[in-house]
Amino acid sequence: MSEDIDFYFDFSSPYAYLGSYLIEPVAAKHGRKINWHPFMLGVAMQGEKSFPLTQYPLKGDYSRMDFERTARYHKIPFAMPTDFPKVTLGASRGFLWISREDPEKAVTFAKKVFAAYFVSGKDISDIEIVADIAGEVGVDRDAFKTAVQDAEIKAAFKASVEDIVFNRKVFGAPFFIVEGERFWGADRVGQLDEWLTRGGW
Amino acid sequence: MSEDIDFYFDFSSPYAYLGSYLIEPVAAKHGRKINWHPFMLGVAMQGEKSFPLTQYPLKGDYSRMDFERTARYHKIPFAMPTDFPKVTLGASRGFLWISREDPEKAVTFAKKVFAAYFVSGKDISDIEIVADIAGEVGVDRDAFKTAVQDAEIKAAFKASVEDIVFNRKVFGAPFFIVEGERFWGADRVGQLDEWLTRGGW
Repeated sequence: MSEDIDFYFDFSSPYAYLGSYLIEPVAAKHGRKINWHPFMLGVAMQGEKSFPLTQYPLKGDYSRMDFERTARYHKIPFAMPTDFPKVTLGASRGFLWISREDPEKAVTFAKKVFAAYFVSGKDISDIEIVADIAGEVGVDRDAFKTAVQDAEIKAAFKASVEDIVFNRKVFGAPFFIVEGERFWGADRVGQLDEWLTRGGW
Repeated sequence: MSEDIDFYFDFSSPYAYLGSYLIEPVAAKHGRKINWHPFMLGVAMQGEKSFPLTQYPLKGDYSRMDFERTARYHKIPFAMPTDFPKVTLGASRGFLWISREDPEKAVTFAKKVFAAYFVSGKDISDIEIVADIAGEVGVDRDAFKTAVQDAEIKAAFKASVEDIVFNRKVFGAPFFIVEGERFWGADRVGQLDEWLTRGGW
């Protein structure tokens, strides 16, 4: 039995963006599907009494440097957005809505949202910009804008975030779960790879 | 010019213990000396509004699992102490005192202190236990116990911790600095290795 890899991310997390690149070759190597799950890191941080990395006095400067250095190390295009972090509720609800019709299209949309923020520096909290990206992947722009304000979609996304944080106990991003094994951080993708190779250790 | 690797650690940090193993082959490969610098992670955490990893609601359980899994991954002997964390001021002052006479002996002492806590589960906040370890490496037990209460040693260690946290901006452990480049975490030793191989990227 070959289980999928669950990938939990926040569109505003630099390490989740980097992790989205790193997990792909590993999943392909092991013939695993990646299930993308956007959530709100802010909800997890509330419970953990944590803050966005860049808001810590010393860790903040280090983190900005490490995002860039780690991106260059892995040859992933990256430019730290000047306005950080962003609340990306619209993009996340939009992802959920697109994925109901077409999960693959939702992933293409997600990759473009990540790139818009972490490569092009666009404001992905602006629903007009996010709707443009939806349009680029062949989603009706107006229907998208309506959907992200739809009460049922809002409730479904809220329930999903609560399930992810409170039931699946995801407290950071990126977070990967495969065969019940939990890996937090872009820097644990190597162990995840080895875990699938060896079947644990 | 080949610069040393500065290694900053707290005797109570599991990842610093793991990092102390991981940095050795990398340093040897590149012909670099490792300078061991104990400090008080608690002082850094105050400024960062951070807490010991195990005290976070969700991250705490994950971290305990990750310490064990990462140790097994690297085949490093490890057993999470039940009483965690410890304030290891005595061991740290003792390290400073030993290192003035014999830096290599101080490193041997440090490795034994780490092992006493993270392999044998001994209470390394107990100065009698730490003095026993000093004795094992050929340091006079009574002189050691006197030294760790010496006003000058206390002041020197305090000044060192302040220099490490406030001037060198070390906020976590393990922390490595080589040629001005900063690496935080046992999971950055791979990048440090590559940095020395390529001379940066």
